[in-house]
Amino acid sequence: MNDTVAAFDDWIRTDFIELNSELERRYRQQQDRANVVGVGDEVKAQLEAVGCEHTKLLLAQGNTDEGFEQAFDLLGNVGLYLAACRRHGLSDPDNDRTSPQAEASALAMHIAASIGVVPRFATAHLCTHNRAVNGHYKRFTNLAAEQCFIDYNSKGILAFKRAAEALLKVLSLGISHPISLNLFDAAKHALEEVYHSNDTLFTQLDPDDFFYGVRPYYKPHHVGSQVYRGANAGDFAGINVIDMLLGLCKANEPAYGRMLVEKFLYMMPQEQRILRDCMRQQSLMTEFLEVAPKQHHSRWYQQHLQAFLKLCQLHGEIANQHHQQLVQRYIVQPAAQMEQQHLQQLTASGPQLAGLLQSLTDLRDRRAGYQRDDIVTSYRELSLLRRTLGED
Amino acid sequence: MNDTVAAFDDWIRTDFIELNSELERRYRQQQDRANVVGVGDEVKAQLEAVGCEHTKLLLAQGNTDEGFEQAFDLLGNVGLYLAACRRHGLSDPDNDRTSPQAEASALAMHIAASIGVVPRFATAHLCTHNRAVNGHYKRFTNLAAEQCFIDYNSKGILAFKRAAEALLKVLSLGISHPISLNLFDAAKHALEEVYHSNDTLFTQLDPDDFFYGVRPYYKPHHVGSQVYRGANAGDFAGINVIDMLLGLCKANEPAYGRMLVEKFLYMMPQEQRILRDCMRQQSLMTEFLEVAPKQHHSRWYQQHLQAFLKLCQLHGEIANQHHQQLVQRYIVQPAAQMEQQHLQQLTASGPQLAGLLQSLTDLRDRRAGYQRDDIVTSYRELSLLRRTLGED
Amino acid sequence: MNDTVAAFDDWIRTDFIELNSELERRYRQQQDRANVVGVGDEVKAQLEAVGCEHTKLLLAQGNTDEGFEQAFDLLGNVGLYLAACRRHGLSDPDNDRTSPQAEASALAMHIAASIGVVPRFATAHLCTHNRAVNGHYKRFTNLAAEQCFIDYNSKGILAFKRAAEALLKVLSLGISHPISLNLFDAAKHALEEVYHSNDTLFTQLDPDDFFYGVRPYYKPHHVGSQVYRGANAGDFAGINVIDMLLGLCKANEPAYGRMLVEKFLYMMPQEQRILRDCMRQQSLMTEFLEVAPKQHHSRWYQQHLQAFLKLCQLHGEIANQHHQQLVQRYIVQPAAQMEQQHLQQLTASGPQLAGLLQSLTDLRDRRAGYQRDDIVTSYRELSLLRRTLGED
Amino acid sequence: MNDTVAAFDDWIRTDFIELNSELERRYRQQQDRANVVGVGDEVKAQLEAVGCEHTKLLLAQGNTDEGFEQAFDLLGNVGLYLAACRRHGLSDPDNDRTSPQAEASALAMHIAASIGVVPRFATAHLCTHNRAVNGHYKRFTNLAAEQCFIDYNSKGILAFKRAAEALLKVLSLGISHPISLNLFDAAKHALEEVYHSNDTLFTQLDPDDFFYGVRPYYKPHHVGSQVYRGANAGDFAGINVIDMLLGLCKANEPAYGRMLVEKFLYMMPQEQRILRDCMRQQSLMTEFLEVAPKQHHSRWYQQHLQAFLKLCQLHGEIANQHHQQLVQRYIVQPAAQMEQQHLQQLTASGPQLAGLLQSLTDLRDRRAGYQRDDIVTSYRELSLLRRTLGED
Ligand code: HEM
Ligand code: HEM
Repeated sequence: MNDTVAAFDDWIRTDFIELNSELERRYRQQQDRANVVGVGDEVKAQLEAVGCEHTKLLLAQGNTDEGFEQAFDLLGNVGLYLAACRRHGLSDPDNDRTSPQAEASALAMHIAASIGVVPRFATAHLCTHNRAVNGHYKRFTNLAAEQCFIDYNSKGILAFKRAAEALLKVLSLGISHPISLNLFDAAKHALEEVYHSNDTLFTQLDPDDFFYGVRPYYKPHHVGSQVYRGANAGDFAGINVIDMLLGLCKANEPAYGRMLVEKFLYMMPQEQRILRDCMRQQSLMTEFLEVAPKQHHSRWYQQHLQAFLKLCQLHGEIANQHHQQLVQRYIVQPAAQMEQQHLQQLTASGPQLAGLLQSLTDLRDRRAGYQRDDIVTSYRELSLLRRTLGED
Repeated sequence: MNDTVAAFDDWIRTDFIELNSELERRYRQQQDRANVVGVGDEVKAQLEAVGCEHTKLLLAQGNTDEGFEQAFDLLGNVGLYLAACRRHGLSDPDNDRTSPQAEASALAMHIAASIGVVPRFATAHLCTHNRAVNGHYKRFTNLAAEQCFIDYNSKGILAFKRAAEALLKVLSLGISHPISLNLFDAAKHALEEVYHSNDTLFTQLDPDDFFYGVRPYYKPHHVGSQVYRGANAGDFAGINVIDMLLGLCKANEPAYGRMLVEKFLYMMPQEQRILRDCMRQQSLMTEFLEVAPKQHHSRWYQQHLQAFLKLCQLHGEIANQHHQQLVQRYIVQPAAQMEQQHLQQLTASGPQLAGLLQSLTDLRDRRAGYQRDDIVTSYRELSLLRRTLGED
Repeated sequence: MNDTVAAFDDWIRTDFIELNSELERRYRQQQDRANVVGVGDEVKAQLEAVGCEHTKLLLAQGNTDEGFEQAFDLLGNVGLYLAACRRHGLSDPDNDRTSPQAEASALAMHIAASIGVVPRFATAHLCTHNRAVNGHYKRFTNLAAEQCFIDYNSKGILAFKRAAEALLKVLSLGISHPISLNLFDAAKHALEEVYHSNDTLFTQLDPDDFFYGVRPYYKPHHVGSQVYRGANAGDFAGINVIDMLLGLCKANEPAYGRMLVEKFLYMMPQEQRILRDCMRQQSLMTEFLEVAPKQHHSRWYQQHLQAFLKLCQLHGEIANQHHQQLVQRYIVQPAAQMEQQHLQQLTASGPQLAGLLQSLTDLRDRRAGYQRDDIVTSYRELSLLRRTLGED
Repeated sequence: MNDTVAAFDDWIRTDFIELNSELERRYRQQQDRANVVGVGDEVKAQLEAVGCEHTKLLLAQGNTDEGFEQAFDLLGNVGLYLAACRRHGLSDPDNDRTSPQAEASALAMHIAASIGVVPRFATAHLCTHNRAVNGHYKRFTNLAAEQCFIDYNSKGILAFKRAAEALLKVLSLGISHPISLNLFDAAKHALEEVYHSNDTLFTQLDPDDFFYGVRPYYKPHHVGSQVYRGANAGDFAGINVIDMLLGLCKANEPAYGRMLVEKFLYMMPQEQRILRDCMRQQSLMTEFLEVAPKQHHSRWYQQHLQAFLKLCQLHGEIANQHHQQLVQRYIVQPAAQMEQQHLQQLTASGPQLAGLLQSLTDLRDRRAGYQRDDIVTSYRELSLLRRTLGED
């Protein structure tokens, strides 16, 4: 890290957090917690100005070619700054034609293009690649809700990844390999961990603190002249690897395919590669369906299929939990209560709440293999496989 | 190529061209050549229906993992189909919310995501990677203007690439290496070829035939729910490699950086890698500026700098030629004549004509190193270097 | 899989196993189990001839560009054939100048060059990438000892990989990140699994059956005019990733660096990339040493360091176990008993037994952090860190 | 470049050249120019000691992760040092078991493993990636013969690359594409440049100066415990790309395949990728043979085939020229004259002269498409194609 980069990083890890926290404190004291207009203007001005100073120096310095990790990390810092500006109304895609943070935008675009990701902070910057210094990782504020959210997002993501890594190893061994049973088991443990981690999150995270003090940092905003949606906990390859290897979602189904297209540049390049590679593979469900007619009496078939179906069930349950608990409690309910005037800026990915909910419901139904007439789910295939259980 | 893929390819190379050509013939016979409404509806219906049939089969077939080249080629075919639908008003981003060609969109998105490019046809599909069969490459129509346009686009692109390849080799040798003089020379020949090729295009391409019968296939259109701009002859790495290695354009300049960001997914993955790699390099101009104080009396310095400045001059002249001749004659003038009602759909890259022209002027001024107050050009640096010439 | 490839694969999965098993049965009945000369000559001839027939057809077919996985799998099949020829004395590096299996050699070289690995079967072919068909994976014989060896090699490798994957994630988070404690824990579980798996192997694998009937398939042999050492259970990146991230081994230490150089082409390309990437990283031990002076009183430091040191200890114990139990019982002891005339062909990697043992001892001492005067171990660093424990 | 690296680079560019040149001067004054024993021992000692000092510091510094280019460049410097030691008898593979330059070996192995190439200097270090400083590139001595050799090697390599780049572009367009004729033409010009460059080399390079003062730096030598052959002008992908795309050589032919296997790690990673990618392609000759029956009357066929056959002819002529002129004059003849006692260390690539000559003859015969009974050449295919010329 050269000095200019280090100075900015230091600011992000100290004053930046203080300024955001101070602003949150003030917003909170209002009758209408959602309002940011006319509150703490001198604090906002300071935040914008100091960040601007840093990004100007960094932009002038140009590319210093210190490798991917450094570049990605710096992009994260610029991204946190841009997201904070947007949270405090210092930029607003509904009113601006381009980002008022011109230097930060130019810097973000330069770095992003050179490493192949979107020019804004992504989930990886706060979760899997958020380097801690003496126990403290980067964050926007010192709110307990934010820490809780980041911690359990990270845990969920890492556990999903572990499940995906296990399933990818099955691909090379085939569903009938004795070791695949161990790998199904490892995937099961990992998914159970996701379930429990989400459950803890549900118990510990205060809905209002999250809705009013954390989520606004994840809003869509301009970088240069283009608006980019907010970061999602789902912006990593593992979740889709599980979807597709289990055979619950298919990349050639329009809605799911569109989601993949849209998502690629929000993932790190290594994740992009994993997902691309996975898209050319045949699903494990297809493997089971192919051998079912001849092998359903085999001992391995019965054992391995049982383990496989257990995984499908778990994956569906997690989708359900995410839907019924997290989305419901932390977005739908507070949104219903929030004053009407702030409503349109609600979701991280831009579409209006109803549309978002519909697409999340569809996703849940695919993952759970529910019967649906209007979209493709693997309800029929799962039923067929389930019927072959116990036939040995 | 499996049978489904081959059948579609065959259709694209035969009937598809006939149908488009027939429609062009009919449009042409009208008073208002720009009108497509209510003309040849049964021909359009056939084009849409047959293409739809093919894409349905291909979508159902799913991913057959036959390697990058096959996937890229198939994407090109789907892309040509979608672009023709848009040209004939079978889709229209001003009226549609999503593409009416749902299957083709889903297929395009699936393939595109799996190889890391935009889900539409790109310049490479018609130029550098347009595989000929018995002397015939893929195209929309059998109009002479289209063939002329594709031929000279291809020649220009290949010559620009050759220039870029030569300059990239200089990077590894340093500006003072004796062989670098040979490489500057090779780059010069390549750029001269671009110049002459553009000149021939200017002489041979009929402005109206191009404007009314070729350009409309390059309009922005939906793929799924997103609108993608049309293909540009500039969607390859070489041109920006030359810009940046010569030091005439800088990736950390906002407008230029934005252009790079926007452009990446319109290039082939291999081109993306070349451009990314180039973005972390120091320019040759910077190398000259660094050694100028101590080396300007050296013989190598005088010789190599002269060759280098010649390249800068040529690159500027080509930008000027593109601007004054091609853009002016084939877009600005016919547009001025065209009836007002069709105007908003004019350019391939989406922004309105005036905005487009401004950004092209800026680009030209950077490439030519003109003096500008409002944007960064290398006018000052070029002057400085020029003054050191003849000082040995 | 095209027909020629499938036919060969089918042969490898059926007759090939029968022929090898029959030969093993005959060797076993002799007084001197190690002798292969003059035994089952007609069986050997059949094995060589049929394999030769298959490889001729495959060679003539040339490259069919069906992707990495197919190519790697086919290379495995040719490799198993070549290794069996060598095991049965149908090739012998001590007497031949080049491989008598000319077609198989040419085929192996062609594939290997095109994917970037050695032209012989590697551990991945039998363990992590040995695709099972209806529960049966590829193997040389139907001996219980072989199955036991492959199963527990695979388990050990997969568990080592899991530990490495966890440590690589710590790299992006830093040693002090709260999640890193979870990751240290995951690595610990994985290493414990290696330990137990090796222990079970020790209990279940019959030393003589292994020594006389399994290990000979892992001997060095010619491919074309070059001799390649046999496959090692250690030919994957994870083990060295653990070594280096823990800071127990260093790539710039001559003996360890040489081992890495030698090993690269025996690993799959993806593994090569992981290992390369790891070589440019700073070790976690170095991170601890750097912050120790200022942070040793922190709670996180005490907790995380304890977890880290536990990992080092476990890694050392596994090295010890491998050395004292596996190498001792399955190689050193039977070798001591074996008749002198066969001795020189003993180890998979070619060097004589004594030299091999010395280098394994050195490796063990590095992994265990033992005090050594003649080679670099991290004895001093570990002591230093251990002394800071309990100082909060 | 950090200071330690820069200091070493500076030494290599100054004193190192002086020391080698001084030694060459002394060797030259002897009756037996080939003798190095007992000459300039204090100069040799200084060369070894200073280099050793530098490499020790670099080794201790460990990996500083400054990117591929820096690492490759440093490897080149270590490699030049090791090669000079070998040239002056400070190492000798016939007598040593491992390299006496232990630190330099360890450093070379560390870097080489981390970037995926052999741990010694390769042709790219002296030719295509030999960065000049103020007009001076790296070299061993200040002998005119060395400069001449490097200059014309570089020119030949760059021209071969240009030919290969043109042919690779034909692959994406097909042999019948109108632009392919331009590309065949570009390839022709490039090959003619190779021819003339080789010719000039033949005229200008003094055989004895080369044989006694340049070639010895290209001998095989130990790095650690392994002997690596010397660098060859052919260690880049382009030459084999031309061989294979023209269809004159085939990767599944044993001898040619072995050469490719052996060569990979002597090429830069980017070159390795190009060659690998080319190995999965069908040759242009095969494309012509496939369409010949139906297309030989077409105008494009006649024109393009003529251009293609011209390329084959030129490639053969260059092979012949290399064989008859360069190899003959600069190796065979001086070797015949050289005193017998030095003979065994003659060639850079290790095999004895006779074997080397045979394999070069075979290669020449493949490239020239001569009729041979014992190895596969494309004599028959070329004749067949030639007969279809003039049939339109
Ligand atoms: C307060 C907690 C959470 C809330 C309110 C929440 C809400 C949402 C919403 C609204 C989306 C849709 C994003 C959009 O399109 O705008 C989403 C996506 C997603 N979330 Fe959560 N989420 C929460 C926590 C988590 C956690 C802990 C995980 C586990 C890693 C997770 C995994 C995902 C995934 C994988 C997606 C991407 C869509 C998909 O592929 O499923 N979420 N979440
Ligand atoms: C019968 C059981 C085993 C025996 C006799 C054995 C013996 C050996 C020997 C002799 C070597 C040195 C190879 C050479 O240089 O020739 C070696 C290397 C190695 N073995 Fe084993 N091994 C056994 C099982 C395992 C298992 C189950 C693992 C766990 C995955 C393992 C991990 C390794 C590793 C990682 C290496 C590479 C050197 C290193 O990095 O440590 N081995 N083994």
